[in-house]
Amino acid sequence: MCRWLAYSGSPVLIEELLYRPEHSLIDQSLHARLGAETTNGDGFGLGWYAPDSQTPAVFHSIEPAWNDRNLHEVASHVQSPLFLAHIRASTGTAVQQTNCHPFRYGRWLWVHNGLVRDFHRIKRDLALAVDDSLYASIEGSTDSEMMFYLALTFGLEDDPPRAVERMVGHVEEVGRRHGIEHPIQMTIGTTDGNSVWGFRYSSEGKSRTLYYSTDMRTVRELYPDRPRLQDLSDETRIVVSEPLVDLPGAWNEVPESSYGVVHDGEDELHPFTPVNTGNGG
Amino acid sequence: MCRWLAYSGSPVLIEELLYRPEHSLIDQSLHARLGAETTNGDGFGLGWYAPDSQTPAVFHSIEPAWNDRNLHEVASHVQSPLFLAHIRASTGTAVQQTNCHPFRYGRWLWVHNGLVRDFHRIKRDLALAVDDSLYASIEGSTDSEMMFYLALTFGLEDDPPRAVERMVGHVEEVGRRHGIEHPIQMTIGTTDGNSVWGFRYSSEGKSRTLYYSTDMRTVRELYPDRPRLQDLSDETRIVVSEPLVDLPGAWNEVPESSYGVVHDGEDELHPFTPVNTGNGG
Amino acid sequence: MCRWLAYSGSPVLIEELLYRPEHSLIDQSLHARLGAETTNGDGFGLGWYAPDSQTPAVFHSIEPAWNDRNLHEVASHVQSPLFLAHIRASTGTAVQQTNCHPFRYGRWLWVHNGLVRDFHRIKRDLALAVDDSLYASIEGSTDSEMMFYLALTFGLEDDPPRAVERMVGHVEEVGRRHGIEHPIQMTIGTTDGNSVWGFRYSSEGKSRTLYYSTDMRTVRELYPDRPRLQDLSDETRIVVSEPLVDLPGAWNEVPESSYGVVHDGEDELHPFTPVNTGNGG
Amino acid sequence: MCRWLAYSGSPVLIEELLYRPEHSLIDQSLHARLGAETTNGDGFGLGWYAPDSQTPAVFHSIEPAWNDRNLHEVASHVQSPLFLAHIRASTGTAVQQTNCHPFRYGRWLWVHNGLVRDFHRIKRDLALAVDDSLYASIEGSTDSEMMFYLALTFGLEDDPPRAVERMVGHVEEVGRRHGIEHPIQMTIGTTDGNSVWGFRYSSEGKSRTLYYSTDMRTVRELYPDRPRLQDLSDETRIVVSEPLVDLPGAWNEVPESSYGVVHDGEDELHPFTPVNTGNGG
Repeated sequence: MCRWLAYSGSPVLIEELLYRPEHSLIDQSLHARLGAETTNGDGFGLGWYAPDSQTPAVFHSIEPAWNDRNLHEVASHVQSPLFLAHIRASTGTAVQQTNCHPFRYGRWLWVHNGLVRDFHRIKRDLALAVDDSLYASIEGSTDSEMMFYLALTFGLEDDPPRAVERMVGHVEEVGRRHGIEHPIQMTIGTTDGNSVWGFRYSSEGKSRTLYYSTDMRTVRELYPDRPRLQDLSDETRIVVSEPLVDLPGAWNEVPESSYGVVHDGEDELHPFTPVNTGNGG
Repeated sequence: MCRWLAYSGSPVLIEELLYRPEHSLIDQSLHARLGAETTNGDGFGLGWYAPDSQTPAVFHSIEPAWNDRNLHEVASHVQSPLFLAHIRASTGTAVQQTNCHPFRYGRWLWVHNGLVRDFHRIKRDLALAVDDSLYASIEGSTDSEMMFYLALTFGLEDDPPRAVERMVGHVEEVGRRHGIEHPIQMTIGTTDGNSVWGFRYSSEGKSRTLYYSTDMRTVRELYPDRPRLQDLSDETRIVVSEPLVDLPGAWNEVPESSYGVVHDGEDELHPFTPVNTGNGG
Repeated sequence: MCRWLAYSGSPVLIEELLYRPEHSLIDQSLHARLGAETTNGDGFGLGWYAPDSQTPAVFHSIEPAWNDRNLHEVASHVQSPLFLAHIRASTGTAVQQTNCHPFRYGRWLWVHNGLVRDFHRIKRDLALAVDDSLYASIEGSTDSEMMFYLALTFGLEDDPPRAVERMVGHVEEVGRRHGIEHPIQMTIGTTDGNSVWGFRYSSEGKSRTLYYSTDMRTVRELYPDRPRLQDLSDETRIVVSEPLVDLPGAWNEVPESSYGVVHDGEDELHPFTPVNTGNGG
Repeated sequence: MCRWLAYSGSPVLIEELLYRPEHSLIDQSLHARLGAETTNGDGFGLGWYAPDSQTPAVFHSIEPAWNDRNLHEVASHVQSPLFLAHIRASTGTAVQQTNCHPFRYGRWLWVHNGLVRDFHRIKRDLALAVDDSLYASIEGSTDSEMMFYLALTFGLEDDPPRAVERMVGHVEEVGRRHGIEHPIQMTIGTTDGNSVWGFRYSSEGKSRTLYYSTDMRTVRELYPDRPRLQDLSDETRIVVSEPLVDLPGAWNEVPESSYGVVHDGEDELHPFTPVNTGNGG
């Protein structure tokens, strides 16, 4: 079980989100509340978009986030309008930088909480479906990265929701063909640097938690005495595995089998339905 | 808060103690039960004595013990009649190999659970008391290593209990001179490769837990159906921060302000009384 | 370019081979003489066989070997009759433990110096030839590990020379189909804990260097005043990328396109000829 | 032997200096030309000043700079008007983040190339001279950090050249009292975020190399066809252990026993003379 966070909005010091809230992501690395495991100490990752840069930066570490000095240095000296952070609890694969989220391809970042069940048994079949031109770019050994490359194969760069629905459909087909009852469990965050998509789904219909922040106007009206909130633009939005602060009215659960889009204009929330790719057999 | 273990007896695969018990030290690195903190993920260390070697080997890692593959490889391929292992939860100092226990000097190893309170304020005064010939061998920045070098200064190699009593007396004198109410909190394990000494003490009289195993004859009679216990010699003894298995009658608490000695012949248990060194002022 | 060493013979402290010779493997990590690159600082690995253990131990580190304290501790406290060591200079893939040699499968170890040219382009095609039951055990991203899993697929455990010949034949077929002129460059060391096989081959016929030690009787007669040599059994043999000491008469070059076997009884040297697997097309 | 670089001037992507020049600092980590050792693989550090931040950021790594992905990510996504970078070749002390340069205290950064001779013997005497309020902030075990804390003790924040002269005078006094002929060898770079001071000195009068870039107007006139140079302000200056590119007229050697100041207005170059502190005896 992992934890992740996506921020989109007014440029802020990354530290503001990762370290300062009462129940920040860094605090969750030692004391997660809503997951099966309380410790997420098997590495960490941060991806952020910088002005004038074609691709996002990624910082990966195999040390626990709570004591990684370099992470704190970067987070307290870099401002960004859009970033993803992830703390990892390995479900068996090696603790190494290439297994740390967010994964990056071109302008895209990808984080995942959950697992492909019995991944070891179906890994080869899943790998065969990855596009030939993408296969050699897979650097690590996780189910999460494999899901990313499958989504890229199925058109992530053109139609993210559809590509993720096809990826999930494919994993379920292959899994069930191998007799796996509930092949996939996930929340996913992905972004191209402009929009952020957040997905919540599991084959068994009991998915890991995912929350998004209420729109900032509402939050500001509810809490006029919180000065830090007054500076954030109306468009600012946070998507996160578990709430960062106990602020009633500030967090909404992403419903089961749904996905949301954070972008310019009104944000969206839609049902999520895996799509059969016909390649599973 | 840290956890540690000392083993002395029939040569065993180190893995038998570190990994296989139900509540092994590696399990305690993620799920300690008796301490203030449940996670001990800020590095690890193992020191063992090998036949034909003048000094013990030490293996230090800054990664959490629960996922360190090299530790598991070494532990599952090296047998030893005497070893110390330690999992660390930093109380503020850097996570680096030179801050990992056990510390080594010549044939001696040293592990510590606890802290010197307000160490930052009295560090220099403590360092001044370290013998000139030893000072430059201090490699890390922890209170634990400083305590080791003070004990060496006060004669650890000649009379370990007396040297530790003088070390503690000195830390308390220096601490109280700086207005620190309860300067020291500790359990300590130290060995020269022949005997093992285990200490339990704190200025406030509420010390961290420490247990030692009942003698093996008793354990074998109580549990005739545990085959692994039948092979261990009568002299085999384990000292540990918290019990490794729920085996009624197998573990005894080291009393407050006491120390024990594990060696050839009957083991001993004595009261521990800090000794004023007259150097604190 | 990497460097490796295999030792088989009288049990010795691993340190004797890794650290003590004038031009030891550790010295070669900073100052290799015979390779294109003088620095091999991208990680390290050691695999050794211990008595009473079914599988060899492996110790992998991403730090340069010359300053890795844990490696020195293990090497100076562990004796073994058979071990492989490897220092890495990455040709582009990530510096991570799962990319460090020796690779292990069951009782087998594998080290490689060289490369599969344009590996990125043919990686997927090579992966498809790996046996379904083995595929998910590939943990890293190197050409060297892929070669190992191909050799396992082609029968390494039953007939090592033939399996390596088929592996090389397959890589050459796939490579040439993609227009790669000289697909493979290699020296390889592999062992099951009883015998050691050393291979030297490259598609262009200009292979990386490989040496084996002259039989110990000869060496002892040549150098009666070297006490350390007097203790080693007649069967002791070292295979290495470049000589460890300047000792005339002690080292023999493995000829181009050849392989040798070190085992009980007379050692062997044979020509090496890639075998067409008919799977390249 | 180490290598370092200081940049002050128009804000640039750090990568421009660390990676892109023909003989960049990262290239020097594998292939230094002017030093006794060609490899500087024992860790790395980068310190940079960011807008709106009270203290500079520091990024320390114990991995060789040439393959550190996080360093490359940060350097290629962060712009700064003033930064120091350092690649380390350990002269014996542990490879750990707290031994990586630049060292930081408040707004100050400090890098060093060289050594205090027989540091082990005089470490305690040097430590005793460090101000009581600073002592506990020493985190590592290097001579370089000790020199920094001595300079802070002697007034670095008020009068940097005088403080460094007193620090060097003190080290020489203490060293000579212990019978060390040439106690110190150094180039030093230090900055408060506004000015940069570069020192070159050694007790034996044969100091490690140090260069500074010719003023940018001159360089631009000499090389009108180098577009990257046209964007840099007149004030831009680089100080470095060895030249980054072969550009005749672009680099000047800092003379023996001298120091330079890079700041607003005309830069300065002065003789450097150690000052006796009278504390050596």
